[in-house]
Amino acid sequence: MSIVFQIEARSGSARTGRLTTPHGEVETPVFMPVGTLASVKGVSQDILEELGVEILLGNTYHLYLRPGVEQVRKLGGLHRFMAWPRAILTDSGGFQVFSLNDLRKVTEEGVTFRSHLDGSSHFFSPESAMEAQIGLGADIIMAFDECTEYPADQARMRASMEMTARWAARSKKHFEEHKSEVPWNAASEIPTLAAKSAATMGHPPSLDPPLSGHACQTLFGIVQGGMDRALRKESAERTVEIGFPGYAIGGLSVGEPRELTREIVESTLEHLPVDKPRYLMGVGTPEEIVEYANLGVDMMDCVLPTRAARHGLLFTSEGKVSIKQARYAQDAGPLDPNCGCRVCRRYSRAYLRHLYASNEVLAQVLNTIHNLSFYLDTMRRVRHAISLGVESRFLASLWSRPKT
Amino acid sequence: MSIVFQIEARSGSARTGRLTTPHGEVETPVFMPVGTLASVKGVSQDILEELGVEILLGNTYHLYLRPGVEQVRKLGGLHRFMAWPRAILTDSGGFQVFSLNDLRKVTEEGVTFRSHLDGSSHFFSPESAMEAQIGLGADIIMAFDECTEYPADQARMRASMEMTARWAARSKKHFEEHKSEVPWNAASEIPTLAAKSAATMGHPPSLDPPLSGHACQTLFGIVQGGMDRALRKESAERTVEIGFPGYAIGGLSVGEPRELTREIVESTLEHLPVDKPRYLMGVGTPEEIVEYANLGVDMMDCVLPTRAARHGLLFTSEGKVSIKQARYAQDAGPLDPNCGCRVCRRYSRAYLRHLYASNEVLAQVLNTIHNLSFYLDTMRRVRHAISLGVESRFLASLWSRPKT
Repeated sequence: MSIVFQIEARSGSARTGRLTTPHGEVETPVFMPVGTLASVKGVSQDILEELGVEILLGNTYHLYLRPGVEQVRKLGGLHRFMAWPRAILTDSGGFQVFSLNDLRKVTEEGVTFRSHLDGSSHFFSPESAMEAQIGLGADIIMAFDECTEYPADQARMRASMEMTARWAARSKKHFEEHKSEVPWNAASEIPTLAAKSAATMGHPPSLDPPLSGHACQTLFGIVQGGMDRALRKESAERTVEIGFPGYAIGGLSVGEPRELTREIVESTLEHLPVDKPRYLMGVGTPEEIVEYANLGVDMMDCVLPTRAARHGLLFTSEGKVSIKQARYAQDAGPLDPNCGCRVCRRYSRAYLRHLYASNEVLAQVLNTIHNLSFYLDTMRRVRHAISLGVESRFLASLWSRPKT
Repeated sequence: MSIVFQIEARSGSARTGRLTTPHGEVETPVFMPVGTLASVKGVSQDILEELGVEILLGNTYHLYLRPGVEQVRKLGGLHRFMAWPRAILTDSGGFQVFSLNDLRKVTEEGVTFRSHLDGSSHFFSPESAMEAQIGLGADIIMAFDECTEYPADQARMRASMEMTARWAARSKKHFEEHKSEVPWNAASEIPTLAAKSAATMGHPPSLDPPLSGHACQTLFGIVQGGMDRALRKESAERTVEIGFPGYAIGGLSVGEPRELTREIVESTLEHLPVDKPRYLMGVGTPEEIVEYANLGVDMMDCVLPTRAARHGLLFTSEGKVSIKQARYAQDAGPLDPNCGCRVCRRYSRAYLRHLYASNEVLAQVLNTIHNLSFYLDTMRRVRHAISLGVESRFLASLWSRPKT
């Protein structure tokens, strides 16, 4: 058993569904918080559970460098390493390596790159990216692709798309031959944290996954093709021809105007199978994730809510709040009067402003919790609206509660 | 009503007691975590409650600079500002100003000092320190003292002790004349966070203090006298003569050998009233807080557990753990197999080591939670031992559980 995707309700192009993974169910459309280094910066796993996070994203490039794939594998895989019993998706490292710019060199075989940490030289290929992701043991892993830069000319977009297609085939081949090596199957032989301390402390049951039989990972393909609709169509068709249980749209949010992003997303979705999950990588603002869910996207991830939180930029039902501003210094009201998260229930804007202005670590912790809560709440409302058959125009009403 | 202190059990010099404050009860001996800037760095208030923290310490010097006393006062005082409904104690700022070294100038009137933040010039006197602490509105506030440097000669120790005695009298006088100005009494006119959002979100009841009638603050005196037993005796007698509901021992942990600290603590305690709470400022290691509680100290505070946590130094029942060490990289066991805190229940040493080595903010959060849990647990065991009449030799057995 790998994943099962069931569509539950439709409204126009939008749909709600249920993605059953070896580590629990995920209601879609879903926003996946980014836990780059096996941690959503500043937020402990029990709070992520409380927020209702059902799937997290980990970055293969970063985890490969620290703590290292072998390290995670030996400890039973990412779920057990980070004590996260719910679903995880890892990217392939392709996008991160792409972001290194001057530190990388791409050939047909793969990408040679230098670590941003110590300048050491490394090599990722479709095969080694699969090996890394199998060792990390996420529920959903991604084909190794080349993220085409923006802008790029037609010849470059085509060449890059074609290499991504060849790499997708190599990714799938390697994955099929090695997927039995996922660390879950060996994990039962590693003593659990609970077992180690149960004798003295009566610790709660193991955080181990609710695996049934021989659960295995699932590999998604990635569509590239730059900003050209025809190339995107061809990429989608070639990727579908190789055959994956889910498809991602990559290579967007790389500097292009947002209208173009939307246009490419919409046209690419037409060429992806309706019965398979569709994952739009690396987006977006609250407005954008609502919009893309309405177009029929099932999964999204973005560093925006967590990164913005660290810079004091908070998303609320009344719009964006830059909490560092002096205007909040005497504001005894909650950050968002329409939010029920543990931050808005307890703290005032004045206190959050003080923490941020004083460079207190708690600012980052609380800001991140709120922004994630806002994103997850937004997706909950989107799912609710779709299930009620509200196709469009509901977008604007999502944040239309009266101001206090 | 200010505070009520009831001794519940005695064992030799040690005692357990109950300190009733306007913001709840505190079981003594108690360790007070330090929340310098209205935040225990990295730990949210609900987790402090879960850990069983009954009283927090705030630093007047830091809060005076950021966000400013007037700011906190207008928002209803520290409790409401930081959403902490339990007890708070503020220091007088004397020790912090003392630590500024080159940035301060002491006269009979008070201390002129420069802010460590922007070099701006400020003045603290017994009167202004009372004014600041009344504005912040902690349950227990401290007389303005001069912390005598170490080493110091006899004349210097005497002069400093005598000035502290004169400042204690001035502190008390100003406090008695102005204690009705505590912001709690006006706070009922400030809309609460809960009231502001209750209409839309059904937020939980107000975090406001369980104040009965006209609750007021309590001012403690501070004994100085350097490392001279006779001067300490004289300081204790003069401070008791002025008369306070509680007494602190200041001017220790300033660089002297630990045996000398213990000797001065023990001899000073002899001259303090047995029926009043005794607060030893700025100590100590887990072993030391156990030892001082056994000598009859009721209250202690120290940045050690929180600061050490930020440097990856963790206190466990099996001794100190420097989590950054490579030896923990593959250690799947809990940080402390005898600890039931939310960190030890969930995460492995390998994961904590990874977070620290990767400079993840969650490292600081989790490390701090564990160290505070260890300190609070230690004091819980000390209280239990005292209540059972176990006077001495129980110290060593506190951490003697078998290794796993």
